[in-house]
Amino acid sequence: MSNTTETESRSTSNNIYLKLADEYANKLRRSIPNALTLGNLACGLFSLIMTMNGLHRFAALFVFLAAVFDFFDGRVARKLGHVSPIGAELDSLADVVSFGVAPTILAYSISQWSFLMIIAFFSFPLAGAWRLARFNIHPTTGHFVGLPIPAAGLSVAFLALFSYVSPLIMITLAGFMVSKVDVPKL
Amino acid sequence: MSNTTETESRSTSNNIYLKLADEYANKLRRSIPNALTLGNLACGLFSLIMTMNGLHRFAALFVFLAAVFDFFDGRVARKLGHVSPIGAELDSLADVVSFGVAPTILAYSISQWSFLMIIAFFSFPLAGAWRLARFNIHPTTGHFVGLPIPAAGLSVAFLALFSYVSPLIMITLAGFMVSKVDVPKL
Repeated sequence: MSNTTETESRSTSNNIYLKLADEYANKLRRSIPNALTLGNLACGLFSLIMTMNGLHRFAALFVFLAAVFDFFDGRVARKLGHVSPIGAELDSLADVVSFGVAPTILAYSISQWSFLMIIAFFSFPLAGAWRLARFNIHPTTGHFVGLPIPAAGLSVAFLALFSYVSPLIMITLAGFMVSKVDVPKL
Repeated sequence: MSNTTETESRSTSNNIYLKLADEYANKLRRSIPNALTLGNLACGLFSLIMTMNGLHRFAALFVFLAAVFDFFDGRVARKLGHVSPIGAELDSLADVVSFGVAPTILAYSISQWSFLMIIAFFSFPLAGAWRLARFNIHPTTGHFVGLPIPAAGLSVAFLALFSYVSPLIMITLAGFMVSKVDVPKL
């Protein structure tokens, strides 16, 4: 009899640990999408540091890596059923750094100042921020209105891989971002 | 008779111009708050450029200037009666650059790498972004929950004015930002 009670009490305490482990696993699973988004932001920061150290190609590669994180965070969130409004907000904050500010600073660092470059330097990140703010207020499904900022940031980073910066292309991309042109979702 | 008609048609055309002028003036007035917010973001970009060029004190001053824009955009919007959800989103996007990324890169540029600095380098902007995302989803009135990111960014910029960086202070500020401590609104 005393033996049975011992087994019971043991299995109860085991159950408590299992429940706790389950809870922690669940919490961990819920935080994966936001961790991916913070990875995107961290890549943006790394890109800025690489630019500061004159490592332009690495800076461009970190923008690409940021895009990988950005590609997966939303998908993982939907797959796990943990789509949260805070995740969407965080995503925009990471995007403006990784695809707006980092490519602009990278472009600035490998180009000469010119009148067009000054316009590109301001219009690109400002248009990107505007596009992100507009998307958060009027989200679209199935298609995008205006070029998404990751596509614009990746284009600038891709050209920077070949040490090429075109203010005209940057201004055009900025125009596309704030435009109301329909862009199909990949 | 023909004279009257002429005067009438003239005053009508004048009215049309006045209406158009009114409409444009109204549009311009509505866009002032968002222009101030974009000014905040532009200051963040300038701060990054100053850091890249080794002008640390100027970089810190641009963070202060960003705070001036940040102080006025919401107040001007409320004064003009043009508070818009897109303005609030844009504000967060500007804040993460000017008070999260710019002070972090500034601190990185005037400090030596150390284990604590690596933690500070990631925790500060990531905590700031988290704080901004949380505030947008659960806005508070009358008081803040957790230290607002401009206060944290200004603290780091203020210390950088004296070429001083403390990873411990940055990590503490990051902790305060994500904490649920009540902070009174100024």
